[in-house]
Amino acid sequence: MLHKLLGDHKLVLASASPRRKVIFDMLGLKYLVRPAHIDEIVHTHMPSRLVLSHAADKAAAVAADMDPDCIVVAADTIVYEQREVIGKPTSESEAAALLRRLSDNTHVVYTGVCVRRGPVESVGFERTRVTFKQLSEQEIADYIATGEPMDKAGAYGIQGYGSQFVTKLNGCYFNVMGFPVNLFYRLVIQGFYP
Amino acid sequence: MLHKLLGDHKLVLASASPRRKVIFDMLGLKYLVRPAHIDEIVHTHMPSRLVLSHAADKAAAVAADMDPDCIVVAADTIVYEQREVIGKPTSESEAAALLRRLSDNTHVVYTGVCVRRGPVESVGFERTRVTFKQLSEQEIADYIATGEPMDKAGAYGIQGYGSQFVTKLNGCYFNVMGFPVNLFYRLVIQGFYP
Repeated sequence: MLHKLLGDHKLVLASASPRRKVIFDMLGLKYLVRPAHIDEIVHTHMPSRLVLSHAADKAAAVAADMDPDCIVVAADTIVYEQREVIGKPTSESEAAALLRRLSDNTHVVYTGVCVRRGPVESVGFERTRVTFKQLSEQEIADYIATGEPMDKAGAYGIQGYGSQFVTKLNGCYFNVMGFPVNLFYRLVIQGFYP
Repeated sequence: MLHKLLGDHKLVLASASPRRKVIFDMLGLKYLVRPAHIDEIVHTHMPSRLVLSHAADKAAAVAADMDPDCIVVAADTIVYEQREVIGKPTSESEAAALLRRLSDNTHVVYTGVCVRRGPVESVGFERTRVTFKQLSEQEIADYIATGEPMDKAGAYGIQGYGSQFVTKLNGCYFNVMGFPVNLFYRLVIQGFYP
């Protein structure tokens, strides 16, 4: 298990996401937080390539400043619908438009994860299909009033008020929270304990 | 949304489960906790009937002592595999046997929910398929050593160390935590705001 495999290592979470911290804490891990600052350029229409490349860029950026013995973990999450990447809303009216788009519809969440130690890295991605109920204009307005949509890709949080809109999920739940746990476990085993 | 619909009501959670409290808090609800004490008799081989009946029994038991204006919410969760209900382990060796059974296999989690106000109740159930990776004897021993399996149906918690064993989920994640959020939302709307 992860707390046993990683217990004796210097572990670095290359992310400022509070949701990823919640997951690391849930797994009983001891770690430092060192957010990565990279330019997230949407350079491809293939969502799996995009999140893999962003995750690897983030891990590399943070690893450059750390002891080569550290294990650096980075991730990148996007919401994908109708062949388009849906980012974080920049205004309440954009949040409303994004939520109308997810309403009564199924979208896909992709997260890429990179686990890096010195020059060695293991990377992978997870995809999860998420189905939303039909949202009324009142529900959209009430949800935006909670403040939850504004800092989140796709304008919702599955681990908050947004949970009540999700009728079905197919794949890894933690991926939708921003960090696919079983994938991380597999990457750690493959990369360092083959 | 639930915090708007239920904000002016006296809401009672008829459960001692810390995971259900986490979900109520996540939804921004104000509520009292009044655990139900009923005899959970496995009187049927139909898992949906079993959880519906237990949830309604719990709600009725608690509602009997409350103001008829209160909205009482009860739930019952079981793990089901090969036509058998898998309960909470009573010893570490039983926990190990249950985990061996879930290893490299798919099981089903059922939760029944009852929302009751005076003589009116609305009930429903949710089912979610959960797939586990193959577990080694070392992983099973390490997991039992965390203490997490002992108070949980199926001997695992999806919102803890157990998350790393889950490779796939099909349905509602919160059902596996013990309280299906979107179902609850639908029951509140159907029952009280038709």
